[in-house]
Amino acid sequence: MPARIRLPRRPDPDPVLVVGSVAYDSIVTPRESGERILGGSASYGALAASYFAPARLVGVVGHDFRAQDRRRFERRGIDLEALQTDPTGRTFFWRGKYHENFNVRETLELELNVFERFQPRLPDTHRASPFAFIGNIRPDLQLHVLGQLRGDPFVVADTIDIWIETRRDELLQVLRRANLSVLNESEAAKITGHSHVIASGRALRALGLPAVIVKKGEHGAVLFHDDGLFTLPAYPVSELRDPTGAGDSFAGALIGYLAARGETGFAAMREAMAYATAVASLTVEDFSCDRLASAGCAEIRRRRRELTRLTRI
Amino acid sequence: MPARIRLPRRPDPDPVLVVGSVAYDSIVTPRESGERILGGSASYGALAASYFAPARLVGVVGHDFRAQDRRRFERRGIDLEALQTDPTGRTFFWRGKYHENFNVRETLELELNVFERFQPRLPDTHRASPFAFIGNIRPDLQLHVLGQLRGDPFVVADTIDIWIETRRDELLQVLRRANLSVLNESEAAKITGHSHVIASGRALRALGLPAVIVKKGEHGAVLFHDDGLFTLPAYPVSELRDPTGAGDSFAGALIGYLAARGETGFAAMREAMAYATAVASLTVEDFSCDRLASAGCAEIRRRRRELTRLTRI
Repeated sequence: MPARIRLPRRPDPDPVLVVGSVAYDSIVTPRESGERILGGSASYGALAASYFAPARLVGVVGHDFRAQDRRRFERRGIDLEALQTDPTGRTFFWRGKYHENFNVRETLELELNVFERFQPRLPDTHRASPFAFIGNIRPDLQLHVLGQLRGDPFVVADTIDIWIETRRDELLQVLRRANLSVLNESEAAKITGHSHVIASGRALRALGLPAVIVKKGEHGAVLFHDDGLFTLPAYPVSELRDPTGAGDSFAGALIGYLAARGETGFAAMREAMAYATAVASLTVEDFSCDRLASAGCAEIRRRRRELTRLTRI
Repeated sequence: MPARIRLPRRPDPDPVLVVGSVAYDSIVTPRESGERILGGSASYGALAASYFAPARLVGVVGHDFRAQDRRRFERRGIDLEALQTDPTGRTFFWRGKYHENFNVRETLELELNVFERFQPRLPDTHRASPFAFIGNIRPDLQLHVLGQLRGDPFVVADTIDIWIETRRDELLQVLRRANLSVLNESEAAKITGHSHVIASGRALRALGLPAVIVKKGEHGAVLFHDDGLFTLPAYPVSELRDPTGAGDSFAGALIGYLAARGETGFAAMREAMAYATAVASLTVEDFSCDRLASAGCAEIRRRRRELTRLTRI
């Protein structure tokens, strides 16, 4: 079993369902590039969650998916029963470029490939998952996943710009049903029309979202919750190499921590955000999931402690 | 004597020197406008400092300076001995406009007027001020002020874009001599060439600045210090009406708090930033110094406490 961050009195954390894309990315940054490297929201999310709880990945790959990438998941103990292989096509592919010192991301090429026909099917065991992260797939598919879940799971949801533009109503259904939505600053602004974070977070709550985290990249994240506001800075990384997957790692670690703790209140969410920030900071220090997959629990704990020092008035 | 925030065991805080512009501003925001309202770095800085310690304003005004504006300073107990009146001209005037929901500021008109011939002269009492905020005047004038100060005062310095572009060497002399520099994110980026705050703050320290606070507007501020990093969010204001003067209020309250506390180490600076953030949040809730001048100590303390709740993991 892979090393996990153990919380007091919780030897057996609840399993976490992670639904999203598994992709190959070709990425150009201002200084470097990576070609057909493992990416996708479910890859980052499941690897991040696996540091806290058993993760169950739900996604699809094509005939070109490399055995070595499957092993990366297996080495972190990730359950791949619901990772479908569609032999009729290739794995989702994204080519992107970061400009202006990482502040602008441009999509150069996008091939949905097998992802175009993806229908997330949850095996019976998975339907009872008490914690689920539903990444940025099409909102009707997110609803399809929500419909398969049994009991009263705690759900974290994410999205991307295109669904805000093309499927706003279905997306709002998803975000209202999720216990916690995790959105970028720009996504929150696009949904609400407010460019300032405090205003857009409050507007999202007014739209009926139970709780919202607005992520601000290098400026950290803000939680909007019934019990109050909470702000957290980003971890001060020594070198930003590739920001791809930071948000998905954040969400994956967040739900992994909640599952490990077995609590989902305001205090647990604040602590979860601190761990999520620590884990996301690892992702951006290397391409793909490299640093995320190789990081040790000790380094995650160290960064978590550093965040306390960084924020204590 | 005006109401002040009293700190334990410090009944008589040290006086604070505040040097900068006193101006009339005409401001257009996306929703409102204000015509020839009191502004300027020294006005905001001195009013903010006056909530913590006796403030001594150093600046110049013209024949058009209104008695009612002078009284606003006097009501907060601000020493105006070094506020020169130059009868040969008008007060510094700035006309500006905020675009795109306050994210872009445009200068429409700028008349230096009497400010063009301003030579800050410190009366003998003022030369011994143990705390000084030297606002965004021309760097050679900032050096002129530094040259008049006796003893070993604690100095906070600020600047604006134009001096980075036109008088970089003199400006760096100022910032290296100041104990603490308080810069905007965009100014820090312009000096260092780094657009990310952590990188630019570290680069400023590498340039020889003893300590630096980089202000990020709605995203808060970061302190770079020998003893570590410290981050603080902005106070979540209910309504942003006019951001003019937020940075000067921040710096004024910061040095006022340090003078009141009589300490200038890392812990004192962190606490000072929390008070400074609380005070700056008042400034942006109304035009000119209106809310800043009328705010009560209780409201400042309340916002200071709220920042603790907002940041506690």
